[in-house]
Amino acid sequence: MDDKVREDVRVRRMAERGDYDRSTIDAILDEAYVGHVGFVDDGRPVVIPMVVWRFNDHLHIHSANKGRLASVCAGTAVCVSVTHVDGLVLARSAYNHSMNYRSLVVHGVCEVVDNPAERTAALQALVDHFAPGRWGALRPMKAKELAATVVLRVPLEHAAAKIRRGMPGDAVEDAGFPVWTGIVPINTAVGQPLPDPTMPPGDLPGSPVRR
Amino acid sequence: MDDKVREDVRVRRMAERGDYDRSTIDAILDEAYVGHVGFVDDGRPVVIPMVVWRFNDHLHIHSANKGRLASVCAGTAVCVSVTHVDGLVLARSAYNHSMNYRSLVVHGVCEVVDNPAERTAALQALVDHFAPGRWGALRPMKAKELAATVVLRVPLEHAAAKIRRGMPGDAVEDAGFPVWTGIVPINTAVGQPLPDPTMPPGDLPGSPVRR
Repeated sequence: MDDKVREDVRVRRMAERGDYDRSTIDAILDEAYVGHVGFVDDGRPVVIPMVVWRFNDHLHIHSANKGRLASVCAGTAVCVSVTHVDGLVLARSAYNHSMNYRSLVVHGVCEVVDNPAERTAALQALVDHFAPGRWGALRPMKAKELAATVVLRVPLEHAAAKIRRGMPGDAVEDAGFPVWTGIVPINTAVGQPLPDPTMPPGDLPGSPVRR
Repeated sequence: MDDKVREDVRVRRMAERGDYDRSTIDAILDEAYVGHVGFVDDGRPVVIPMVVWRFNDHLHIHSANKGRLASVCAGTAVCVSVTHVDGLVLARSAYNHSMNYRSLVVHGVCEVVDNPAERTAALQALVDHFAPGRWGALRPMKAKELAATVVLRVPLEHAAAKIRRGMPGDAVEDAGFPVWTGIVPINTAVGQPLPDPTMPPGDLPGSPVRR
């Protein structure tokens, strides 16, 4: 493990599954739709699912100006976790059952992106991340919409990935036990887009279907 | 909203998406593989992805005896969030983009399941939830394995679901704007099981493939 990894980020259980490389961290974040944002509100833990995306060297979150996230999290410590479940790991013993997964935990102080141009750039990155090239086809953002949107960011400096892959890790003495053992893959995939029936007719730009 | 819903559980943003019915809450939890467990450790927020399952009227979590979760969370307030992303909602304006999702937030004090028989029953429920009938086919659990496993539970009493479904909610004045609008479904599915190549030959019990 890298010496510069801060103690609160270090993977403790199954430490050999930890990975602190930015390329690993970026790949897990870039595949995510939501992250689970944890913060302390009046001494109590709160976890809220939020859309997350990467822009430059930060994990970004956006929210309504009036939201609790904006009022409580700005300038305070948060912990954001992203998880992709890849499979059920069915072992010979209950004890050795597991899951295959790729997860990410980011610790940091949540910062409000105040500058309107930076905020717009971050929102464009969000739209174009999920639907490449779509931002330019949209009805342009109004000043009041931008003003009603809070963009928050957490540096990716203190982050850890944790990954499990492969077959069950049964004990050697269990090898001959007569039970089915292996992996049940869990797959997440994008389906066929469903057009809004109120859309004007014609061949419109911004379609998520690659042509 | 139900008057008995505790303030810290109440859905605040988009309150009309809140649902406090146990049947809704159970359905979201029963479809989950992991939940994101938030707690406060030394004043700081921590969020860890953990396998979660429902047994009786509690959300259950298990961990190694040596894990931080067991030492920090027992007897303290936690917040567990479960999220299913169902689709990207592509509107005419960036502002009205959204996601379709079903999420669950449970607040409660985390309790250790001390009784070994209760702990075993909860672990059996976990195995049989993900692979129906599998527990009985496994190499029986050893006393030292049970002793090394902590089972924690949080009552489902203070929980809220939040759900968004359907097409984009664009402003009326944007209806004619010429951009593709609709939903990109996100689907999570179980794939074809991958047998462990070290399994003994023959037709073994406990297969996750329905025959």
